[in-house]
Amino acid sequence: MSVQLEGRLANPDRMARPDFCPIERTFKVVGTRSAMLLLREAAYGTTRFDDFVRRAGLTETVASSRLRELVDAGLLTKEPYREPGQRTRYEYVLTPAGADLMPTLVALAAWGAEHLPHQPSPSYAHAGCGAPVAARIECAAGHAVTMDQLVASA
Amino acid sequence: MSVQLEGRLANPDRMARPDFCPIERTFKVVGTRSAMLLLREAAYGTTRFDDFVRRAGLTETVASSRLRELVDAGLLTKEPYREPGQRTRYEYVLTPAGADLMPTLVALAAWGAEHLPHQPSPSYAHAGCGAPVAARIECAAGHAVTMDQLVASA
Repeated sequence: MSVQLEGRLANPDRMARPDFCPIERTFKVVGTRSAMLLLREAAYGTTRFDDFVRRAGLTETVASSRLRELVDAGLLTKEPYREPGQRTRYEYVLTPAGADLMPTLVALAAWGAEHLPHQPSPSYAHAGCGAPVAARIECAAGHAVTMDQLVASA
Repeated sequence: MSVQLEGRLANPDRMARPDFCPIERTFKVVGTRSAMLLLREAAYGTTRFDDFVRRAGLTETVASSRLRELVDAGLLTKEPYREPGQRTRYEYVLTPAGADLMPTLVALAAWGAEHLPHQPSPSYAHAGCGAPVAARIECAAGHAVTMDQLVASA
């Protein structure tokens, strides 16, 4: 069972061009454990540097350079805030492009929850009805799509 | 707009325990560009070592150790084959656990196609009806779930 390949992709040397594959392009931007953990925290509502460091379990150096990269890549915005008597600090908020990574984060979480079980582990549900959620491949017409029903072409 | 957190997850130090987060657990197994590119190729039907090396654009050393890790983690199986007059070689095939990563790969691809456009780039469609596919978050009752309708609890 595999994906159906058409056009240029049917050529056995299909992937020789740099940046041809969108999975590879995405991984260049968010393909590190630290980037994914920071995006998880941003999705969980974390906005402040110290909280990112502690909750993502990163060093300040790594968190700082990774947050800067995510801002530069347009996934987070950096906004100034100031508490009374304190210097100006910045908070980090998901952009629409960053929020669009949610299906990826849920897909990674669902896979880990099923195939690498651990107790305790978070579970994910739909607030509207309480049913558990998962990432699914679906077409624009609303059909669930299995791997062998997927056509990749270029 | 962020995910709703309940139980242990509502604690600001929620992520201090190692291996608590299933995103992090998944990333430990498949969180490298090379692992994702090898899984992409396996999903595209590639089975032979030389083809993995060329199509994923990896060195033999990297491909070899990464394929071994993916076999050890239960994502690929390694099966012997032999062509006339040749020594025994091995081919690598996705296991059901490996095939379960498809929504993750499609989610990464869909994000890159939308937010990091490049020409040419593959597009992905449903073989049954031709409509474009994407990864979506859905609950078991069939509702589409947005980020702010997602409840994470532990």
